[in-house]
Amino acid sequence: MKNLSTTIERIRELLDDVSSEETLKEELNSFHSADLADILQELKDEERLECFKLIDVEKASEIIEYLPPQLQVEILGAIDQEHASRIITMLPHDAAADVLGDMEDDETETYLDKLPQKFSDEVRELLTYNEETAGGLMNPLVMTVNIDMTVQQVLDYVRIKAEEDNLDLYYIYVVDKQNHLIGVVSLRALLTTRKNVKISEIMTSDIVKLHVDDQQGYIADEFMKYQFNALPVVDLYNRLKGVVTWDDIQDVVEEETTEEIYASSGIATGSIDEDEILEGSMFTSIRARTPWLFVTLIGEFIAVNVANHFDGTLKALPIIAIFMPLLAGLAGNIGTQSITLMVRGLSTGQLTMNSALYNIFREGLIGLAIGAVFGLMVTLFTWGWQHHFELGLIVGLSMAINMSLATIIGTLTPFAMKKMNIDPAVASGPVIATAIDVLGLAVYFTLATAFIIKFM
Amino acid sequence: MKNLSTTIERIRELLDDVSSEETLKEELNSFHSADLADILQELKDEERLECFKLIDVEKASEIIEYLPPQLQVEILGAIDQEHASRIITMLPHDAAADVLGDMEDDETETYLDKLPQKFSDEVRELLTYNEETAGGLMNPLVMTVNIDMTVQQVLDYVRIKAEEDNLDLYYIYVVDKQNHLIGVVSLRALLTTRKNVKISEIMTSDIVKLHVDDQQGYIADEFMKYQFNALPVVDLYNRLKGVVTWDDIQDVVEEETTEEIYASSGIATGSIDEDEILEGSMFTSIRARTPWLFVTLIGEFIAVNVANHFDGTLKALPIIAIFMPLLAGLAGNIGTQSITLMVRGLSTGQLTMNSALYNIFREGLIGLAIGAVFGLMVTLFTWGWQHHFELGLIVGLSMAINMSLATIIGTLTPFAMKKMNIDPAVASGPVIATAIDVLGLAVYFTLATAFIIKFM
Repeated sequence: MKNLSTTIERIRELLDDVSSEETLKEELNSFHSADLADILQELKDEERLECFKLIDVEKASEIIEYLPPQLQVEILGAIDQEHASRIITMLPHDAAADVLGDMEDDETETYLDKLPQKFSDEVRELLTYNEETAGGLMNPLVMTVNIDMTVQQVLDYVRIKAEEDNLDLYYIYVVDKQNHLIGVVSLRALLTTRKNVKISEIMTSDIVKLHVDDQQGYIADEFMKYQFNALPVVDLYNRLKGVVTWDDIQDVVEEETTEEIYASSGIATGSIDEDEILEGSMFTSIRARTPWLFVTLIGEFIAVNVANHFDGTLKALPIIAIFMPLLAGLAGNIGTQSITLMVRGLSTGQLTMNSALYNIFREGLIGLAIGAVFGLMVTLFTWGWQHHFELGLIVGLSMAINMSLATIIGTLTPFAMKKMNIDPAVASGPVIATAIDVLGLAVYFTLATAFIIKFM
Repeated sequence: MKNLSTTIERIRELLDDVSSEETLKEELNSFHSADLADILQELKDEERLECFKLIDVEKASEIIEYLPPQLQVEILGAIDQEHASRIITMLPHDAAADVLGDMEDDETETYLDKLPQKFSDEVRELLTYNEETAGGLMNPLVMTVNIDMTVQQVLDYVRIKAEEDNLDLYYIYVVDKQNHLIGVVSLRALLTTRKNVKISEIMTSDIVKLHVDDQQGYIADEFMKYQFNALPVVDLYNRLKGVVTWDDIQDVVEEETTEEIYASSGIATGSIDEDEILEGSMFTSIRARTPWLFVTLIGEFIAVNVANHFDGTLKALPIIAIFMPLLAGLAGNIGTQSITLMVRGLSTGQLTMNSALYNIFREGLIGLAIGAVFGLMVTLFTWGWQHHFELGLIVGLSMAINMSLATIIGTLTPFAMKKMNIDPAVASGPVIATAIDVLGLAVYFTLATAFIIKFM
């Protein structure tokens, strides 16, 4: 769908004309659910509801899966409860649990009571797990077979069972009578092995598996690393509880990346759901943003004190004040570049602790090289502008020193944090920027004072 | 693998003791390839080679796929050419093309000549596509069937063909005699339909497909949106050329995220491979970092000029200079938070252009609320510290105004860039930080000057 806005316009025209409801209904139902989800998100609240009501129940349930949580709850809450129940029943168990878990508690109960008994029991169990663990992410409906079946028997069994229970099929899991996980068979193996072979001969018993309590960040890492399509989830006793598929993980990866990016600019997501910062109450957003701003406030007061310490110098040569933003801006900028490179490199695994010293040295040299060139430009410019060579020299020299220092601090800090088992992403941006401010001012004023003592 | 460092230690011990080569060999080959790739990355160059030589060829080829490009080339270049050829032949076509494409041209040719004719022809064709397009990412070996086959016939055909050609199996593609793509059948449908049903009855003909020239960023978006496991790739004439699977896309998503994060701190990745910035020559890194630093330099010179414009004020009340870093630091910090939230929100689709005005208003209010509280604290502190109420008021008031302005600029700019079809991530950080510096100084000095004119 490359022309979303044209589609939206067309839909709005059809919405305006009451006589074209049938045409609109037909058009809407002809889109892929993922596209429809995009369209609905662009529409205004009432338009969205009006359209959603025209969509077939099966497609409506697919769309719900593609929508962000808040919109899921909003739409299902606004339509007829019977209709909503039908839509929820058609969702995979894990998606149904997500939707119901995001509703108010009494609303969740109302729906659970309306749903078919078996379905509602299974969803109720899912709701007992933390949303951000394997238990909360998994689909409990899994295709399992016995170890003594043959390929032919499994094929026959799958043909009936998968359709009946609407099971996802990525792998087939081999379990014993107590449902302990003992093997995994890929569909590929099943489809390419002679039919009289025992399943035990083609199954892998060296299984990569998840525990119900595993955290989503760890699960995402496992998926990224092993590149499986699905991983089985077991409980403490190795009993198979469900399966997490790679598409469940897409959202987790995006969420983890968002948290990493937020953290690096000092937005705290520890106790706050990262969706809420943009979409929740303004107070939530303020709560996420204030802590590190406050740390910056304290840090910058130190910078103010450093500057104040040199008030004699400032009075003797007031012109030096006007170059403060220039020095702070450039050092802050190149330092942020270093932090960004290190934090991201450590997060993706491109950098390891082994390379800490090498990278600090390398970034320091890069800072020195760029700082020297920029320092020279600033010296020449200031000299030409203010007709004051020494002033130009002080500013240019400070720039070279501060830019080098900024790259070194920006490189050293993330490695040091990692070494101390602190996530390097957390607030590295604001804290390091403040440290660079304080140090940079000290360098600049020290040079200026030395000059004044010597020549003025 | 939760204890990588213990494993590394153990391997180093075994490496040191010549007599334990067999034990080492056995241990290494008992790991999962993804774990082995992690281990190899942690080892020093010689250790890595020594270990790699002990690994069975099949496992070695799996490991190669998990390693970063540079290490792939380094290892294959350092081992015996015959051994390397065997490893390359065991790779899937797309992985083989990636590895060979990363080598020097004459080295690529040497290997292509050594490989089996059919394999080398197919890889040669892949090498003609741009690495960052569907053609460069796809695996050309696809399971295709005719439209008039029955489920039973397809199952029989797959049983022979998939094993023979070592094909990935996610979907089965239905093509006509000229290899035009006309349908897709999921393995699930194949396994759950009666065997005498015609494939044409269970295939989907409304196919989401990629074109060989589609860019990887677009492909990643399609995968994220539709959550398919694999997408077929066709040429201009709708002839099936290959298939891109979701695991190919994992790396692309990571790469695109890295580029987005780099861009936001002013590291240019347009013409520079983002891997090279950390691992390539220092000159490459400098080239990626200098352009936006230079823009910052010019921007900050404007800030210097603004400050210079008020040199009378600075001479009359030199103390105001020391609060410059405090004001710039806090405004810069809260502005960066706003940019980060908007850029990420627009990138993930959590925010749409529709919500621009709302978000500018919301962020402005948040800036005002936080700014008012911080401004009050700063006023009181400055008053108490310098015993100068008016100075405290100027600093506090500037802080409140600058923090509000910063949130508004930080919110407005990404939306405005998006509206003009510029990627909001590009350099938004440094450019906006500079704009906030300039505006913030103007506000602060204007207030200070007004006060001086009135009271001093």
